[in-house]
Amino acid sequence: MRITVFGAGNGALALASRLTCKGHHCTMFNRTPTKYDDVMTSGCLKVRFEGSERWVRIHKIADLAEDAIAGSKLIVVAVPVTGQGYYAQLIAKSLHDDQIILLAPGHTGGALQFCKYLRDFGYKGKQNVYETSTLPYVCRVEADKVVAIYREAKHVLLGSIGGDSQMLRTILRLFPQFVPVDNVLVSSLSNINSVLHPPGMLVNAGYIERMETPFTFYYEGATSSVASLIAELDKERCSIADSLGLKVDPFIDIFHKWGYTSDEAWEQRDIKQAMLDSIPNQSILCPTSLDTRYIHEDVGYGLVPIKYFGCIAGVETPVMDSFIKLFSIINSRDYLSEGLTLEKMGLPKKSNRGNIFETIHKLSEAV
Amino acid sequence: MRITVFGAGNGALALASRLTCKGHHCTMFNRTPTKYDDVMTSGCLKVRFEGSERWVRIHKIADLAEDAIAGSKLIVVAVPVTGQGYYAQLIAKSLHDDQIILLAPGHTGGALQFCKYLRDFGYKGKQNVYETSTLPYVCRVEADKVVAIYREAKHVLLGSIGGDSQMLRTILRLFPQFVPVDNVLVSSLSNINSVLHPPGMLVNAGYIERMETPFTFYYEGATSSVASLIAELDKERCSIADSLGLKVDPFIDIFHKWGYTSDEAWEQRDIKQAMLDSIPNQSILCPTSLDTRYIHEDVGYGLVPIKYFGCIAGVETPVMDSFIKLFSIINSRDYLSEGLTLEKMGLPKKSNRGNIFETIHKLSEAV
Repeated sequence: MRITVFGAGNGALALASRLTCKGHHCTMFNRTPTKYDDVMTSGCLKVRFEGSERWVRIHKIADLAEDAIAGSKLIVVAVPVTGQGYYAQLIAKSLHDDQIILLAPGHTGGALQFCKYLRDFGYKGKQNVYETSTLPYVCRVEADKVVAIYREAKHVLLGSIGGDSQMLRTILRLFPQFVPVDNVLVSSLSNINSVLHPPGMLVNAGYIERMETPFTFYYEGATSSVASLIAELDKERCSIADSLGLKVDPFIDIFHKWGYTSDEAWEQRDIKQAMLDSIPNQSILCPTSLDTRYIHEDVGYGLVPIKYFGCIAGVETPVMDSFIKLFSIINSRDYLSEGLTLEKMGLPKKSNRGNIFETIHKLSEAV
Repeated sequence: MRITVFGAGNGALALASRLTCKGHHCTMFNRTPTKYDDVMTSGCLKVRFEGSERWVRIHKIADLAEDAIAGSKLIVVAVPVTGQGYYAQLIAKSLHDDQIILLAPGHTGGALQFCKYLRDFGYKGKQNVYETSTLPYVCRVEADKVVAIYREAKHVLLGSIGGDSQMLRTILRLFPQFVPVDNVLVSSLSNINSVLHPPGMLVNAGYIERMETPFTFYYEGATSSVASLIAELDKERCSIADSLGLKVDPFIDIFHKWGYTSDEAWEQRDIKQAMLDSIPNQSILCPTSLDTRYIHEDVGYGLVPIKYFGCIAGVETPVMDSFIKLFSIINSRDYLSEGLTLEKMGLPKKSNRGNIFETIHKLSEAV
């Protein structure tokens, strides 16, 4: 199958190389052509997965987004949420309505935001935008030409705006671990990065600022205060979903279903232990500064849209509000307004519990 | 002069030894008789001050609080705010209305709380309770028998409930650096420990939990995020005072007036630099756990009462609220209810901007 992968980060390189290994014809395109220059010029990289390492050659590295998607059945957008709009804008004029967009991951509100951008930049066809609740892999580019996949996530939720059953089958053949959900808000509200990363960043901000030796973010960083804060952020997330009549799993269940932690920690409902037992995450180091997507993305495009869904649901979010407030001060930004607002997702501010699903349904239709 | 000092911590030992050096007849009493056992048995300790070191002998270590205050003109209470009520209760029955109480420091709402305890435990005389806006010294007990005074604070505000002009003169003769203020809320709202300590504790919580080597709290701990959070907490504190028609100085002015930082940092209004330039604080290490008065006291008995004064003033405090919320989660406590509420200060919940001063005036009168 002809597939386009947008991005050139950990996730994009892992996806492109895995899909290539499976025999698909991948074209890559990245906003910053100099990122991983070697790979993005030659198309050659090594992928380490399940104990073995092999060289792969990406079929094509495109210079233009519209060339990259020409003839592709599936367009995988594997970029930070803040970059999604850029790619939507680039392809709005050349996208066909038989092409599938897969945001992997969709973060929170990714599909809604992507559709809004497509419409705003002139796309008039049917929208087929899917989003996953997480990146399908725990992975890191370990050197310019080696992408290491530490673990493939199991049970990844897949929501959509538009799309059809045939497109869904196409995606599921490629990614059998994806589990479709009825409502895109379920995949969006199942983004646990937004409850996972901000606590660790907040209580370690001082250390990171004066950092000498990085600590392992998910292991040494898994202190009691981090676990307590994750638990309380997560309660608010679940309560919002519940109030909207949506079923989302608690953090520890999602983390366990992904295959990222031990049965023991899961049975004990112990978030700290679940992090300590997370083998695939164990070696990942903390960010080197507070100018990081663990804050910009997971607060501004995670906690902020979840908080706004809370407004729709009539659920107060004092813990999320605290994180948004304090990180706004720390990073001298106003995450509440610069983050993913309802408006940026194409949702009217006056959305409420009664009409939100109808609103979303209408948005998924062609202009 | 016969003086009683309650407490046996850094502040109490520094005060008792300095007052003894000046020729006063000090009696000490502490709730936990085993604290600094050697000193509190023998009464002997060494005081290091302004480059010289000398032995002093505290006149008497009392076994009972009522014995400790018998015949004393001045009773200095140099304990954490959470301990003040204990001493009020112990002396309520034996206190005379010609005796002066000096809470050094008063923290926030200390004098109000002390008077409430005195009344509750049966004291019926006139109340003469003074509070200072900070501990008069930067000091630490460096070994069981050595109290090191790194700096004597200048320009320490002195508020009171009750008292009279003769008592005020008595205090000022002993402590010429004290500056009387008209309203006890001015000294209470000038407690900058509550805006100084919580930021450093929050952004360093993770490090403290997994601590190997302590960092210097006011120096290495003076990162940009700490300074930004101090600034925003301080804006709320000043705004509350302003709204109540009271004049309090911003953090950096208070810190500078105390003599704790450089003229340069003060002129530049640079909080981070002011901390880096604070010679007397430079060597003080961070707390070794999150079970510390830098949180219990400075959140529960600092930010919490200031927030409640904000309610009276009609000033919203989203930054203070965030700290109170997150530390409540981190330490599994409800600081908003277990901290210093209006009720615990003897103030009715229905206090407002119009009647708060009248209310406080009435409280200062005998029952």
